[in-house]
Formats: sequence, C-alpha cells, structure tokens
Amino acid sequence: MKYLGFAIFLFASVCFAQQSSDFTPSATNVWGAEYPRVDSTGRVQIRVKAPDATKVRLNFWSGPKVDMEKQPDGFWTVTTPPLVPGFHYYTVIVDGAEIADPGTYGFFGGGKDASGVEVPEPGSTYYSVQDVPHGQVREVWYNSKVTGNWRHALVYLPPGYDKQMKVRYPVLYLQHGGGEDETGWIRQGHANFILDNLIAAGGCKPMIVVMAYGYARRAGEALPDLNGKPFGSPEMMKAIQDMAAAFEDDVTQALIPYIDSTFRTLPDRDHRAMAGLSLGGMQTFQITLDHLDLFSYIGGFSGAGGMLVLGNRKLDPKADYNGVFSDPAAFAKKVHLLWLGVGTKEPEMMRTGLLRLHTSLQEANIQHVFYESPGTDHEWQTWRRDLKDFAPRLFN
Amino acid sequence: MKYLGFAIFLFASVCFAQQSSDFTPSATNVWGAEYPRVDSTGRVQIRVKAPDATKVRLNFWSGPKVDMEKQPDGFWTVTTPPLVPGFHYYTVIVDGAEIADPGTYGFFGGGKDASGVEVPEPGSTYYSVQDVPHGQVREVWYNSKVTGNWRHALVYLPPGYDKQMKVRYPVLYLQHGGGEDETGWIRQGHANFILDNLIAAGGCKPMIVVMAYGYARRAGEALPDLNGKPFGSPEMMKAIQDMAAAFEDDVTQALIPYIDSTFRTLPDRDHRAMAGLSLGGMQTFQITLDHLDLFSYIGGFSGAGGMLVLGNRKLDPKADYNGVFSDPAAFAKKVHLLWLGVGTKEPEMMRTGLLRLHTSLQEANIQHVFYESPGTDHEWQTWRRDLKDFAPRLFN
Repeated sequence: MKYLGFAIFLFASVCFAQQSSDFTPSATNVWGAEYPRVDSTGRVQIRVKAPDATKVRLNFWSGPKVDMEKQPDGFWTVTTPPLVPGFHYYTVIVDGAEIADPGTYGFFGGGKDASGVEVPEPGSTYYSVQDVPHGQVREVWYNSKVTGNWRHALVYLPPGYDKQMKVRYPVLYLQHGGGEDETGWIRQGHANFILDNLIAAGGCKPMIVVMAYGYARRAGEALPDLNGKPFGSPEMMKAIQDMAAAFEDDVTQALIPYIDSTFRTLPDRDHRAMAGLSLGGMQTFQITLDHLDLFSYIGGFSGAGGMLVLGNRKLDPKADYNGVFSDPAAFAKKVHLLWLGVGTKEPEMMRTGLLRLHTSLQEANIQHVFYESPGTDHEWQTWRRDLKDFAPRLFN
Repeated sequence: MKYLGFAIFLFASVCFAQQSSDFTPSATNVWGAEYPRVDSTGRVQIRVKAPDATKVRLNFWSGPKVDMEKQPDGFWTVTTPPLVPGFHYYTVIVDGAEIADPGTYGFFGGGKDASGVEVPEPGSTYYSVQDVPHGQVREVWYNSKVTGNWRHALVYLPPGYDKQMKVRYPVLYLQHGGGEDETGWIRQGHANFILDNLIAAGGCKPMIVVMAYGYARRAGEALPDLNGKPFGSPEMMKAIQDMAAAFEDDVTQALIPYIDSTFRTLPDRDHRAMAGLSLGGMQTFQITLDHLDLFSYIGGFSGAGGMLVLGNRKLDPKADYNGVFSDPAAFAKKVHLLWLGVGTKEPEMMRTGLLRLHTSLQEANIQHVFYESPGTDHEWQTWRRDLKDFAPRLFN
C-alpha cells in the first residue's frame, strides 16, 4: 500500500539516521536530518541535494556567502569557519533560486520561511528548555476593526496562570523585526524559555507576553500604486507611514482591549511594557511615546528611533516624539524604564544609529539603560540577551 | 542604514505588491506573495525564480508533476489543470534539488517544511475563521519519562475555557500522518476553526483537542543500525514496532497524565477519544484497542488497521487486537464509537485497505461508522471532512 508504505518508510528511516564524526545535528533540524551540523568551535556543515545543478551557493544572512562543492553523490557540501553562538538564518542558492534547506524547520524571516542553524553558546542555558515550571504559548485570533480582518498573535502566559485564578499579571508587548512575523520571538528567540527560566530563578516578575503581527493596513484602504516609484520616494514613505499608523491603531484600539478582556491582566500603564527588535524597536518607540497613557516601560533592541522618525539625524528633544524628551524630570516620573541595546558586532551603520540616540538621550538628560551585547551581530543572540537583561527590570 | 533600510524595504515592498487577472493569491501565501495563485476553477499558477536553472519541475504530491517553463525574466511558471478543493502539498525541483516555494508558508509534511496551496471549496466555511467565539491553541512542553526528553504538543481549548472555571471538558487526542508533525491539524487542517464553528452552531460538545508529536524513541535506547537493511527487513520491522510501542507508552504514561493534571479534563474513558489520519489512524487503533480502559471513542481517518498489525490481510476478530472484536456485544458496550473514513479519490491500495477493514468489521458484526468523502484524495480536505463528521458524534 503505497501511502501506508510511504508513512512507515518515513517513520522508520528518518528517525534512525546514523550520525558520525564530532559534528552534531543543529537543534533546528527536522527529525532525522543529519545536516546542517555544528561542531564545538561553531563551524557549520551544510549538505543539500541538487544533482543537476551547476552552481550552489550558501547564503548566511549575517555570515559566510560561499560556493558549495559538488560531491559525486549529487549532494553539495561546505564547512564554514566558526560562527558566533546563536541562531543564524540562511538560504541556499541553487542555480539562481534562493531556497530553504529542507534539513531544517522553516523560520520566518526576510518575508519567507528560511532555514536556520543554532550554534550553541557554551554554558548558556537561559534560553533552552529546563526542568522548571513552564508557561504556555497560546495562539489567539482577534477581530481588528482597524484592519478589518482576523489577526493572529501569540501570547505567553507564565507558569501557574491556570492555577492561581485570582492573580492578575502585567503585560509585555514584544515585537519582531522587519521581514519576520509573530512567531519569531518563540521559534527563533525562545522568549518562552527565557521567561520560564528567569521566573523560576526569581529573576523577573511573572508576566504575560504578547507577540503580534507587525504589519497592518486599514480596512478598505486601497493598495497604493508604488509601481515605478523609487525606494525612498515620497509615495513610498507615505505608504510606510500609513502602515505604521495603522499598526499603531491596531495595537492601541484592537489588540490591547482584546488582551485585557481575554486574559487576567493588570490593565494600566504601570503594568504595561513594550519592546521590539529592529523594525519592532522603531514601532515600539512610535507607539509608546505617542501613548504614554498606555505604556510606562519601553525597550528598543537594535532598533529604536530609526528612519520612521529620526532618519540619520540626532534626536531633537524639543520637537521629536511630541516633545516627551524635553522635560527629563517629567519623563523619568512617567517612564519607569527606557532601554536601548545593540550588539558590538552589528553593522557599523546600525551601531552608529543606536549610539547616536544613546548620546542624544544623555545630552537631553533622559535616564535610560544602554546595553551592548558582546560579540553578537544583528541577530537573535543579541535579542535573547536583550530580553534577559530587559525583563528583570520590568514591573518592580 | 543597511538593516533598517532592509526592514523598511520589506515592510513597504512586500505589503504593497499589486495583483492582476482573476487569479488570486493562495491563502497559504506569505504576505505580499502573488504566487501561487488560484482561480475559481481550481487552476493553480506557480512562479519561482531560478534564473540559472536548466530544468524546473512542479511536484504536487497528489497532483500534477509537470515541467515548468522558463520566462525571459528568470522566473519559471506553470498553470495546472483544475485541482480538487482543499490543501495540497507541493515542492519544486530545481535542477534536481527538491525545494519549498518561498511564496508560501512552510507546512510540515514529508519530513520537512514543504509548500502548500489552498484551493477554496465553494460554499464551505466550516474550516475557515468565522465571527464566532474562538478557542485557543496552546503550545505545551511535557517531560516524558518514556522518551527522556521534553516533548512539544498543541492543545486546543474550546471557547469559554478561561471563563467557565468550574467546567471540565472531554478530550480528543488527534494525530497527524506519517511525515507530518503536531502542527499539521492546526496549520493544514484548521481543526481549531472546525471545532469553533461546530461548537458555535451547537453541532458538537465543547472539547479539548490534544495534538502530539507522533514519533518516539525510548530514553537511552541506542539507534538500531539499519544500514544495509532492506525496507521491510526483520530489523526494520522490529525498529518500527519498537517506535510504535514507545509512542504508545508516551501517550498513555506521559501525555495523558500531563494533560489531565494541566487542564480541566474529564479524566475517564467515557470522556476520552482518539483519532488520527493515515499513520495516526494506525497508531490510534493500536493505542486505543490496547487501552480500552482509557478510551471509548476511536477514529481512523484514511488509516486504521494497516501495516503495523494487519498487513494486507483481513482482520481476524479472534486474534487481532487482543481479540477485542471477538464479542460484538461486549465491544459495542465498551466502545461508544468506532469510525472509519476514506476519500473516494484516494489511491486504490489505500481504499482497498480501508474497505477490507470495513467489510471485516461488518462480517464480525462490529458496529461502526464508515464514511466516504466524495471526490477527495489522501489529503487534508478528506481529513477536515472526517473531523467535521466525527466530532459531533463524540461525548453524547
């Protein structure tokens, strides 16, 4: 029986694949896949089947982009130099087709399901599953009047949420980066395990974490015709601003009311935080500083002011963000935490932007935390560390 | 700033892609992707970029396998004949490399994240999101002493679970097919929406649905060396039996106790059902019929007896499955529902196996439901319909 045979074959073969050498399969692999694999120095071996291809190239988004070598068996292979610890997106380019490696689960980044490899950080257990009480990640759908459709979000509820029925919890809204989606903080970031482990160690308050889909278009709004409009054109910038404004309204008018009516939250500004990475950091700045009636904790992970508001110039405390930075004492009273982070190995332009904002805030006497993640790039290891530093400072 | 620019570019470009013609993007697409797209007759257009490839082939798993045509812009395209409604897995083969189309989200099947396209069924709303109260899908991790590791499962909780704190619910354990994983029933099957819609219409009892990862190996058990052992060899069959037995123990000794201690279940056999598709149907038969102390409702969706027990022979009511089918009256008293289903367009071998079991059960005077899904193949539209017919018969 063909299909039963197929099922059984898979059931058997993929689960019993043998492994050899001191490379071990990446934690991101589908069951039974031996490749990609990683050794203790952080080298990664990739192997993909493309028997009739003439050129296959490995494409790490923040790492090596190198030609792979064809083997007699129709597979193409390569071993990278050591990569820094953490999660790395990659694709493989087969005769010009940019594809995901079927050896790993898909991780949504760059607007598609891409491949990922996990290089372990020696001694780091804070973002892996441990034998501690676990929270639950819930998938929810909420009907947004702003966008006129059902939107999907993930919600982390801390351990004990279902048992301590009288307890209400503070909420962190946590956003993904550009090209990613609402699944990123769980699948790539392991935010649930980071929180589980922090909470178990008494390192942070039990809290609800809401991860929303960071793109929005208003109900009934026609698509702007951007054909032939160059990048950065006034039409495109307006479209971007419109989308950012739609997402802001979705968060403040649809998502927050939904969360507060669905879960046992502490529904006030003193118990509501927002943070995000890259694009999500820019959105966080815009949304929280427009709505200090709703938020009192703010985090920008490798993204904060950014193009949406600041472009490439310094912060003007009097004019930018409705002037909230013009009175440091009033700001400190209102905002319990302003937190910025960037990795030391991030691209220079990224570091420059964050450092400029940090300096601007210093000059404006705005109290804030500036955290640099040693040796990490514009990648998830930076943002895992950011969350690990940020979460313990919330709701104290 | 390169990365901010990248983020903004994505933010802008993919969300404002224009569409033309009467084909519309598949519901499975990532945001902004115009392809794959589907017309009202069920034809599917695929378009992938592979400028340097010499041969690109479209590979629907239960559908057309055809060469694609190279266009002057470096994209390869094809339009299929009309496909039957429902979800269809596919991959694209670029110069021998079998890849997922980056235009769709990944759907786990065939042991990897594959592509999928959704051909709408005219008038069918039972498996799409409607304006009714929604349950929540939760991700949970449980520590299995059987397998010695943390296992991931999805749990659907019906609407109102968080509000009606005194109510306890019956539980359906619902398994994926071979090559799929615990995400299949939500991502491909839309089991959550099927249940939401049934419950809202009063068509089925509110219930908890548990979707587990259907592969297991015992803690500390060495991998059997299957190198050089042919398919169907005694060594391989033993390995398959060992895995099936490990999964059975995982379900009965780890998963069920975890679910019953974590959620407000009705933790007895009268309120516990199990069903599964294909491989999951075979597992369901094995597990439930070995443990009638735990289960009283049984569903086999395009998979039931199967290779694990019956091979290609008829059921022997006296000997098979511990002889549970030898006494029809006792069986009917114990098992409230035995349900079998198969699509009329499934491969002949598959239909033969299910029909043989159906006939065997009739001859043995075992009361059961046999459902044939008109016009559908060994694919998710069959299993969505199965669930829609099966769930209302539970826990009455």
